[in-house]
Amino acid sequence: MRNIKLIVEYDGTRYCGWQIQPGEPTVQAELEKAVEKFLQQKLPVIGAGRTDSGVHALGQVASFRTDKAYPPEIIAKALNRFLPLDIRVLDVADVPLEFNPRFDAIKRRYRYHISLKRHAINRFYSWYCKYPLDLQKMKSASQMIIGEHDFTSFCKASPDVAHYRCIVESITWSEMKDSICMEIVANRFLHNMVRIIVGTLVEVGRGSLTAQDVRDILEKRDRNRAGRTIPARGLFLVDVEYP
Amino acid sequence: MRNIKLIVEYDGTRYCGWQIQPGEPTVQAELEKAVEKFLQQKLPVIGAGRTDSGVHALGQVASFRTDKAYPPEIIAKALNRFLPLDIRVLDVADVPLEFNPRFDAIKRRYRYHISLKRHAINRFYSWYCKYPLDLQKMKSASQMIIGEHDFTSFCKASPDVAHYRCIVESITWSEMKDSICMEIVANRFLHNMVRIIVGTLVEVGRGSLTAQDVRDILEKRDRNRAGRTIPARGLFLVDVEYP
Repeated sequence: MRNIKLIVEYDGTRYCGWQIQPGEPTVQAELEKAVEKFLQQKLPVIGAGRTDSGVHALGQVASFRTDKAYPPEIIAKALNRFLPLDIRVLDVADVPLEFNPRFDAIKRRYRYHISLKRHAINRFYSWYCKYPLDLQKMKSASQMIIGEHDFTSFCKASPDVAHYRCIVESITWSEMKDSICMEIVANRFLHNMVRIIVGTLVEVGRGSLTAQDVRDILEKRDRNRAGRTIPARGLFLVDVEYP
Repeated sequence: MRNIKLIVEYDGTRYCGWQIQPGEPTVQAELEKAVEKFLQQKLPVIGAGRTDSGVHALGQVASFRTDKAYPPEIIAKALNRFLPLDIRVLDVADVPLEFNPRFDAIKRRYRYHISLKRHAINRFYSWYCKYPLDLQKMKSASQMIIGEHDFTSFCKASPDVAHYRCIVESITWSEMKDSICMEIVANRFLHNMVRIIVGTLVEVGRGSLTAQDVRDILEKRDRNRAGRTIPARGLFLVDVEYP
């Protein structure tokens, strides 16, 4: 038996997220279909993180087990042949049988793109913010979020989650012509966490919240105090790190 | 009477090019519809260049005449309200009445994006080339095209064209992760010219033509000798220059 690790890129625009949902197009369902067409076996494909509806990925990690002997390059080629063009397998490698892309991950990196002018090109890959934003204030407020905290205020509550503590290692903002981008690295992310963090920092950039407010919101552990969940289309899962 | 100049960005994916064609979606038709909805007048909108079906623009220039007194910012806002999201008016300005975006243009700049790996993201904004390419050879061969030449070999013949001479001012190649991009500046471009030039340079990059062949093709003035017209989706009209 082998364990096959996949690096997967996808344009999330037309998918109801990663995870299989009956009757809905999802990335996991497309991957399982492609594996089945290729290997003539129905095999579960596990992902490192369940991206939400509309979220993109540059380097999602997934895996499946098989006893077929195809070399990795052939597996990549075959899966890409059976996958739609908005999902691509970028890399295939053999990993130890016990490797689990979700539970073994130690870090995840996401990027959120905000467009400051409404553009035609890349409109599915960024969120247009119509308000002028003070990036310096957003950078300062980001510092409040770095470190180990309870992120109850910055996620959608879920019965599946044992606790809401996450260690945010870094938040980096970069500025391009007409757009800004936030990159965030953490050991784990809760449901909607990046989109609520960015939604709250946008309020800081607009001047309706301060850095101190962000600290207070974090401490209050109350989702209602944070900013709104901004749209999925600006969000990319960039990569996942393993020991 | 005023003459209004527009800078227009569009995602050409779902359009049959710039120019109005009965029964087909075109960028010019959408602009004329938006102007009509806004000003309650049917006015012709002239463009600097007729981009082909599927070609994108970052800075197409267009104009229309009106006697309405709205300030430029209001015109931009109103047109964008009536335009689909894949066409955006980026800038509006008053220009002299005699300004003609097509005949007054002295330079046009295009970019062509080639993806060397098939990606899910940006798949509508680049052409995937499955062959490995030698960029150095492509750069050398590009030198053969710079200058004033008869480009009969590098265009689709057209009865509307008085002559096939163009002055190519520069061709610049840049290299990104998994992709390359050609930028070309010329006083004018013939039908399909950029796509045939890049299609021919790709043959050089693959090793099936040499720089000397490119020179010979140019001198022979025979479309059949050049490479194929590569897909529109990698092509962007970047900007248009006026005196």
